[in-house]
Amino acid sequence: MDLLTGFKIFIEKEQLFAPDQSLLLAVSGGLDSVVMAHLFKAAGFRFAIAHCNFQLREAESVRDESFVKTLADVLQVPFHHIRFDTLTYTESKRVSIQVAARELRYEWLEETRTKAGYSFIVTAHHMQDSVETLLMNLSKGTGISGLHGILPAQGKIIRPLLFAQKEDLLAYAQENGISYVEDSSNLTTKYTRNFFRHKVIPVMQEANPGTVPNIAASIARFREAEVLYQQALEKHVRRLVEQKGNMYMVPVLKLQKTIPMQTVAWEIFRKYGCTPPQLPQVLELLDSTSGKIVETATHRIIRDRQWLLITPLVETEAAVIVIEKDRSVVATANGILRLRTVVRKEQTPIPASAAIACLDKASLQYPLLLRRWRQGDYFYPLGMRKKKKLSRFFIDQKLSVPQKENIWVLESSKRVVWIVGLRIDDRFKVTQHTKDQLTIEWEAL
Amino acid sequence: MDLLTGFKIFIEKEQLFAPDQSLLLAVSGGLDSVVMAHLFKAAGFRFAIAHCNFQLREAESVRDESFVKTLADVLQVPFHHIRFDTLTYTESKRVSIQVAARELRYEWLEETRTKAGYSFIVTAHHMQDSVETLLMNLSKGTGISGLHGILPAQGKIIRPLLFAQKEDLLAYAQENGISYVEDSSNLTTKYTRNFFRHKVIPVMQEANPGTVPNIAASIARFREAEVLYQQALEKHVRRLVEQKGNMYMVPVLKLQKTIPMQTVAWEIFRKYGCTPPQLPQVLELLDSTSGKIVETATHRIIRDRQWLLITPLVETEAAVIVIEKDRSVVATANGILRLRTVVRKEQTPIPASAAIACLDKASLQYPLLLRRWRQGDYFYPLGMRKKKKLSRFFIDQKLSVPQKENIWVLESSKRVVWIVGLRIDDRFKVTQHTKDQLTIEWEAL
Repeated sequence: MDLLTGFKIFIEKEQLFAPDQSLLLAVSGGLDSVVMAHLFKAAGFRFAIAHCNFQLREAESVRDESFVKTLADVLQVPFHHIRFDTLTYTESKRVSIQVAARELRYEWLEETRTKAGYSFIVTAHHMQDSVETLLMNLSKGTGISGLHGILPAQGKIIRPLLFAQKEDLLAYAQENGISYVEDSSNLTTKYTRNFFRHKVIPVMQEANPGTVPNIAASIARFREAEVLYQQALEKHVRRLVEQKGNMYMVPVLKLQKTIPMQTVAWEIFRKYGCTPPQLPQVLELLDSTSGKIVETATHRIIRDRQWLLITPLVETEAAVIVIEKDRSVVATANGILRLRTVVRKEQTPIPASAAIACLDKASLQYPLLLRRWRQGDYFYPLGMRKKKKLSRFFIDQKLSVPQKENIWVLESSKRVVWIVGLRIDDRFKVTQHTKDQLTIEWEAL
Repeated sequence: MDLLTGFKIFIEKEQLFAPDQSLLLAVSGGLDSVVMAHLFKAAGFRFAIAHCNFQLREAESVRDESFVKTLADVLQVPFHHIRFDTLTYTESKRVSIQVAARELRYEWLEETRTKAGYSFIVTAHHMQDSVETLLMNLSKGTGISGLHGILPAQGKIIRPLLFAQKEDLLAYAQENGISYVEDSSNLTTKYTRNFFRHKVIPVMQEANPGTVPNIAASIARFREAEVLYQQALEKHVRRLVEQKGNMYMVPVLKLQKTIPMQTVAWEIFRKYGCTPPQLPQVLELLDSTSGKIVETATHRIIRDRQWLLITPLVETEAAVIVIEKDRSVVATANGILRLRTVVRKEQTPIPASAAIACLDKASLQYPLLLRRWRQGDYFYPLGMRKKKKLSRFFIDQKLSVPQKENIWVLESSKRVVWIVGLRIDDRFKVTQHTKDQLTIEWEAL
């Protein structure tokens, strides 16, 4: 099959774009991108050419820029170009030249695409590039997502040459008398990539000349395997993760029995800031006692009886946790609330601890809200007929500023029910008429 | 962590064997297997040593054998050994020396294991071996199953050194003054494996010194990913493949809508002899007309209206297809039966074609059987009061021997109902009393 036919078939098979869409081709002037531009012309697609001059190779950079401009003229398509002060960017952002070039390039391409109304940015990655990516990921260590190589479509970037081998592009250029410039350095590829390109892959090809197309065919299969992986994973996550407000609950026993446990646990906890080296600590919670905590960058994972509770590390001031009627546990950044309803028996004493609130359930209106206290909040302290400002109450209690910051208030239809861990409101206390008693325990972490 | 501790932890984690089980260690005399034997001794496990002398390296082979015998004496464990005439085997079986050695070795090890009552055969494959396997599979092209490297347990073979790197084994030997023999050739590894060991992996390590442990860690994840893959796959197969007797039916529309289609289709059809190059042909059936067929090595895959029917290529003489009352299609190696029940209307004519049987459903007893005709079979040919031997009927019909071999007989409680495609039995014909008529069409393939 000739290159142009393969190109059209690949675009259709992967549904990269529609024939009426206009595209922005990133063209460096090298073999891959120049052949790509010619293929787009030959196929009759609508496109423009974009070129970045990173001003890192002096005369060579200027030569490339004017080469690509001429190419755009010859192909009679719009030409977009820019010159970057890459070195200054590198210094100010403290990143490597490779990272700088990459960031500058994609930012400008996306800006140009949006402004001029192109549907997609098109890059000239081919089969070898994708195989290099897979092998690099492998040598660094990877999960299944590292096996899909370079994707044909990702957001607004498409790569219609992934079906083609470097040699095919070279042959096409020769057959069609297409000239291109030789890059003395390839800015957008790191050293490691060049090493895999020039050292690793050639040795593998010595063992098996079909290495590149064989790995490319495997990549196509891995992409589908990843879909199956995700399907099975989603089922496990639905089964294992229960959301309660801004908290997530994972049942310990169910997770322990899950097959495959490690991977499913990883895929669950990574979403809450868990890193690979932290995973063993999180899994230790499965065998530990209630109260043990692992902190990730963003969340607390708390062993609480038969559950792992996942709760955000920092509650924003605006954070409001909604507590529905059936809720039995609420985890916050600094403590856990446990709720249970019991039928009130007159002889049962009311615990003296301020950490336990005994409330007349009939006096409450659901959903309850758990929120930070605010200036202007007031309540009727238990045993008093007169309302009191919370700010005043806190002074009487001699709370420090950080203590005050950590105070939670339980609210029922805009009325304060409980200053959590300190005092309940008189209007919600248990009386001789109480039938259902809501007991809430506060366990500070 | 020292090697012995890592060894014990790995055995427990992978549940390779129980402490009271006795094991048969395959020991060549090289570093890996000798260190393994010492680890088993140090851990206090029960084991014996087995050594194969392939008699391919003359004096060296004899040296290795006596070295391993001495090792068994020193470790005070039973010693099993054998000498193979590997070259003769190679010639008589026409296989390579590598294949010969492998076959001879595992056959003899398994025999020894069974006879002497060992629980498992133990081989000394380590982390590098597994990484080599993965990279070799990749360069040849593979699906997800090629990514699990060498498995820690497979049938009666276990590999408790897969957690360890070659260097760890070497260090252990040096620290503990363990001597071993140097193999001038490693018989059980192919040229390709040695090439990956000595050429490919060292280059990858140049790019990333952690390549081997990184790939090994990935392998552990891929093994779990494969489990998720299988879970999702099984769900698709259950949804897509319907068994009817010895035939399987796949609904075309459902398969076309399946995501990911290619992989799920491959995993379904490979079980019925489909090879990778045949898959595109099978998938073409999804867009083709009724009657198109793809033959695999073992099965026929037939496009039949909204279904793909999968039926064994060769029906054994003993093959009997059971037809339950609700069955509407039956596929055989040489044709398809379609069954439908209609309420008999007197004016409806009975088709003249011998390929269509119109039967009085009330006269039939389910399940019906479809089978090859047998010597001694007889029936009452339509329109006759006298029974006739099938052998006689075939002579009258002037059937050739191969034609006779392909004849199917439909049977209802041991009575012949229809000589398929030729003549129905008079006892089952439609009469004026028939209410439900069973119409069966025979479509030869």
